[in-house]
Amino acid sequence: MGDSPENSDIAGDVSRLVEQAKELSDSAASLISRTTSEEDALRQRLASLDAHINSLRNSKHADNKLEEELIKVRYILCEGDAAAFLPSKSYGKFLRMFLGPINVRANRKDLKLKVKEEYNNIRDRTAYLFLFFPSLLLILSSWIWDGCLPALPVQLYQAWLLYLYTGLALRENILRVNGSNIRPWWIKHHYYAMAMALISLTWEIERGPDCAQKQRGVQLFLIWAIFQGVSMILQNRYQRQRLYTRITLGKASRMDVVWGETAGVDGQLLLLFPVLFILQGFEACVGVLLLKTAVARFVFGWQVITCGILLIIMAVGNFANTVQTLVTKSRVKAKMKKGKSRQ
Amino acid sequence: MGDSPENSDIAGDVSRLVEQAKELSDSAASLISRTTSEEDALRQRLASLDAHINSLRNSKHADNKLEEELIKVRYILCEGDAAAFLPSKSYGKFLRMFLGPINVRANRKDLKLKVKEEYNNIRDRTAYLFLFFPSLLLILSSWIWDGCLPALPVQLYQAWLLYLYTGLALRENILRVNGSNIRPWWIKHHYYAMAMALISLTWEIERGPDCAQKQRGVQLFLIWAIFQGVSMILQNRYQRQRLYTRITLGKASRMDVVWGETAGVDGQLLLLFPVLFILQGFEACVGVLLLKTAVARFVFGWQVITCGILLIIMAVGNFANTVQTLVTKSRVKAKMKKGKSRQ
Repeated sequence: MGDSPENSDIAGDVSRLVEQAKELSDSAASLISRTTSEEDALRQRLASLDAHINSLRNSKHADNKLEEELIKVRYILCEGDAAAFLPSKSYGKFLRMFLGPINVRANRKDLKLKVKEEYNNIRDRTAYLFLFFPSLLLILSSWIWDGCLPALPVQLYQAWLLYLYTGLALRENILRVNGSNIRPWWIKHHYYAMAMALISLTWEIERGPDCAQKQRGVQLFLIWAIFQGVSMILQNRYQRQRLYTRITLGKASRMDVVWGETAGVDGQLLLLFPVLFILQGFEACVGVLLLKTAVARFVFGWQVITCGILLIIMAVGNFANTVQTLVTKSRVKAKMKKGKSRQ
Repeated sequence: MGDSPENSDIAGDVSRLVEQAKELSDSAASLISRTTSEEDALRQRLASLDAHINSLRNSKHADNKLEEELIKVRYILCEGDAAAFLPSKSYGKFLRMFLGPINVRANRKDLKLKVKEEYNNIRDRTAYLFLFFPSLLLILSSWIWDGCLPALPVQLYQAWLLYLYTGLALRENILRVNGSNIRPWWIKHHYYAMAMALISLTWEIERGPDCAQKQRGVQLFLIWAIFQGVSMILQNRYQRQRLYTRITLGKASRMDVVWGETAGVDGQLLLLFPVLFILQGFEACVGVLLLKTAVARFVFGWQVITCGILLIIMAVGNFANTVQTLVTKSRVKAKMKKGKSRQ
């Protein structure tokens, strides 16, 4: 092979490329090791500060004012860029089961907000689908299908539910790792819902002359889903409003946000909580009805019984957690009032 | 409230904490912004180098030797720390569907290797379970259950399959984002398998006097799963061996690894590929049998037909990709021989 001038040009080019590649590889290595050590140092300092705050908080001398100050300190840490380096909430078995030991913590704040915003968007979108699909199935069943649901559309809907709950549970776990304060119960609630969607897929959708009777379990399940949709829409609305309130307040004065959390949405709360309680009552009722149908007719397998039990567990858990949220909120409010009257 | 000396001590402590928190928050912000800008700069330089390599590779003047040099350059980039900053493979719809816009790319090399090692471990463990569960079900069915499978154990097995394939598909996508060279087909193959597991959950497990006849579809599915288990065990063994070969060679001389990739496992390849082809043939046969049973007896719904079609698609795709791998391997070998004889 003759070495034309063009070829030797290229050869020179390539050897320069090799040099460049080595150089870039070295600077990448040094950047990574430098960043790692700086981050570790910062993490250590933050961990010791965090431990100090906790010990002060638990000390006997803490009065109300000091406690407020400590909340302020923690607020500076959690809402600022330092949050990325605070001791992480435990990674959680669920994420490890599905994703392995990969790190899903975002350092950049814009990325974190993007994850949260996208999660909220999905909840908004799916809440309406949640209302739409089961309603459509029930309407079609009484109008066109003579009270008898065909298997395929119901199963497609159940598969969608399974995907939806799995996705939500994964995202909520990711948000938690990134410092979000989602109550553990709501994530657990989605695990139960995943189990229910999976089990409902194995239900036999009965056909034949008396199928309307035999499909009672499926119909109850669809009615529960409609309730769930209504409750999701209400909660999303309330949470969005609260988020906007927080952002607006945050713009006015970043530090006031924590104290103003419940302000301005009292009217909505008065509507939200009773509706939530009613829906939880309905959920428990559907669960009991499922158990009743399972006992009354032996055609249904273990699926109906398990789904009934799961629904009752979810209703009770939801109720307990909603009450807890209410109690926390009223406590914060009482403290705020006390603080104001003292000033 | 009286201010005791102790309380004022604590008050001083707290105001120091506030200062410290602000300071740490600031240094976190500056660390993040500094790291981000340095990483972006490195990313840009790497992207331009990458583009340069590609343009040289596609130029008419590239002869064999230059091409080898270019492969070397790329190898330096991909195996070193620079890999973390190379233009990422597209993030993929699948991950976005389940996880949202979170970043799953690991900068640290040890974390990347951990992810890969854990993925391999899971494949090893599940391959044996893959063989064990369906074999157990079939054995019990002929020994204890008189040729009739009860619904619950089969459905539990199918739910496990669905979880397994979802987890594998997620992990493979994460590995791809982290620079792994998994062929896209193998990930797609797991999507099809996910669909099949989901569909199989909605199969009605027939009971009654002639259930052994009616359960033909389920039994074929279990037989396919056993084949799948055997093929997974064989592939895992081969890939582990290759990995160890690469690591050993890498210790001797890091740069030789790419060229020595197929060395030392020729004997195994001679066993692996025929077995894989036979298994793929079986897979297609099971697919065709499923279609036949669906046509012969109308008791089975759309599930049997869809699973049959999916199995045939998977068999054909697996076959095509195994052949492609063989062709690539023999091409690389021919080049190596050519290069050696020239030297």
